[in-house]
Amino acid sequence: MSLLFIAPDRDLSSWKDAIHSVDPNIEIDIWPAIQDKERVQFAVCWNHPKHLLDGFPNLKAVSSLGAGADHLLSDESLPKSIDICRVVSPSLVQQMKEYILAAVLNIQRNFVRYIRQNDNRTWQPHDHPSPKELQVGVMGLGELGRPTAKQLTQLGYQVSGWSRSAKEIEGVNTFAGKDELHPFLNNIYILICLLPLTDETKGILNLDIFKQMHDRGWIINAARGEHLVDEDLIYALDSNILQGAWLDVFSEEPLPDKHAFWNRENVIITPHIASITKPNEVADQIVGNYKRALSGLELNHKVNRKLGY
Amino acid sequence: MSLLFIAPDRDLSSWKDAIHSVDPNIEIDIWPAIQDKERVQFAVCWNHPKHLLDGFPNLKAVSSLGAGADHLLSDESLPKSIDICRVVSPSLVQQMKEYILAAVLNIQRNFVRYIRQNDNRTWQPHDHPSPKELQVGVMGLGELGRPTAKQLTQLGYQVSGWSRSAKEIEGVNTFAGKDELHPFLNNIYILICLLPLTDETKGILNLDIFKQMHDRGWIINAARGEHLVDEDLIYALDSNILQGAWLDVFSEEPLPDKHAFWNRENVIITPHIASITKPNEVADQIVGNYKRALSGLELNHKVNRKLGY
Repeated sequence: MSLLFIAPDRDLSSWKDAIHSVDPNIEIDIWPAIQDKERVQFAVCWNHPKHLLDGFPNLKAVSSLGAGADHLLSDESLPKSIDICRVVSPSLVQQMKEYILAAVLNIQRNFVRYIRQNDNRTWQPHDHPSPKELQVGVMGLGELGRPTAKQLTQLGYQVSGWSRSAKEIEGVNTFAGKDELHPFLNNIYILICLLPLTDETKGILNLDIFKQMHDRGWIINAARGEHLVDEDLIYALDSNILQGAWLDVFSEEPLPDKHAFWNRENVIITPHIASITKPNEVADQIVGNYKRALSGLELNHKVNRKLGY
Repeated sequence: MSLLFIAPDRDLSSWKDAIHSVDPNIEIDIWPAIQDKERVQFAVCWNHPKHLLDGFPNLKAVSSLGAGADHLLSDESLPKSIDICRVVSPSLVQQMKEYILAAVLNIQRNFVRYIRQNDNRTWQPHDHPSPKELQVGVMGLGELGRPTAKQLTQLGYQVSGWSRSAKEIEGVNTFAGKDELHPFLNNIYILICLLPLTDETKGILNLDIFKQMHDRGWIINAARGEHLVDEDLIYALDSNILQGAWLDVFSEEPLPDKHAFWNRENVIITPHIASITKPNEVADQIVGNYKRALSGLELNHKVNRKLGY
């Protein structure tokens, strides 16, 4: 029996050590170096090459290396009999809270402007709103969205939340479903996307949505590049419908050198670092699910294929 | 009787409106247009010209327009009989918490690097520590330092605090007085200065202090420019004792065009905007102290001339 890691372009050596520090007896393969395909019973993947996972006759389950499982669900060659799970770690939540909070503070307090002013030796104060004057909207109220929304309320921001099914969060004005998207967006100055990527949410950050927000607002996308319609964002920025965008994820990563998002004053690009899975923090979770899969037990953090998360 | 505002280079029109919305009957002078020097009984000042305040025979008290009173205390011509007070507003505290939190997050999560990478279309992730791996030290545990230190603990940072006299703050490892400065500094990666400016604290951010911190750490100064020995910072940066500095205040403001702080990759300059007094938030405080001064009552938020704050 073997546990297989597949993550092109990533150095996986620290993952091997982390798994072995939980259980030194686990046999580990790291793609593309696989000893015996028939021995692989569990795979841990991040952006795996499509049509690869159907080549393991004894594969029982697959885990995402991160919080999202869209890269697995979008591989139609993955047999439906194979369960999918993901990792959930307090550190992933903590990192996302930090990332979103930093982005919101940087927008509210004009820090991007100040950092850029530094390049020209420009001393120019700008007014800033108080958090209570600033309406922030969080799309997606799951493992990441809920604590992020709560964190923002604690700093004094006016927070609204939107999700597929109705949720209640103290201090957050919540909306649910397509019918409530319009009232949710009303007056939102900073729109934060933390949605799972599903057929329903793909392309949800589009011109129609931007037009319903507060004039000249901002979007923050730390979910998936495919949530955003790139050309709609460029159009919205160029026509002053939006003022700026803070983006961690892109349809193609690394963001191609010629992409129109680069070199715009109010488009901040970070290289998919909002929330990074750290091996030693989730190794026991992966080992746990590996053993559950071998024993035929229900997986922890199992992904609902129908819902897409 | 008149209330006089003195703040060169500031547009004070909104202050007049704010005071009149609390009490429309208060007579207001705005320097240099003063109708009758003898009628002035209370002055509200920000960086007033020295040797100006001794020209008002009936002046009873002076208020700072902000949280700091050093600009008043350093004017030796101000008669000792005149009481000094300052404004304290929840908004000043909130703004400082936001400013420091943003600076700490930007340092921890490499956002300054990422924003600068944007200019070169560079996609390059960098590792970041978790808050619990990051030792932050707050110098000054008063009206601003205490809530800021608490806020940082709530986000998970390891926080130490240092002040002139011993203080206790839940979750913060506190130190007091000169003797405990050395143990306080041990292992501090981000050193935050929120001290009042006094004879004792002037120049406290110096090479000797930087050497006692964690290797290649950062300083954040949001107190007063005179806390920092400019040439020591430049030396510490050039010799890799410090990695960077996030500065809101300077010995000369605006920071002169030729100053060595400009155009250094890891020196972030903001134009004294960490915490800005908003007229409508403190007008009632100023009116209150104006009336207390006229009635001979003890002022609220009175400054202790000996302590300097």
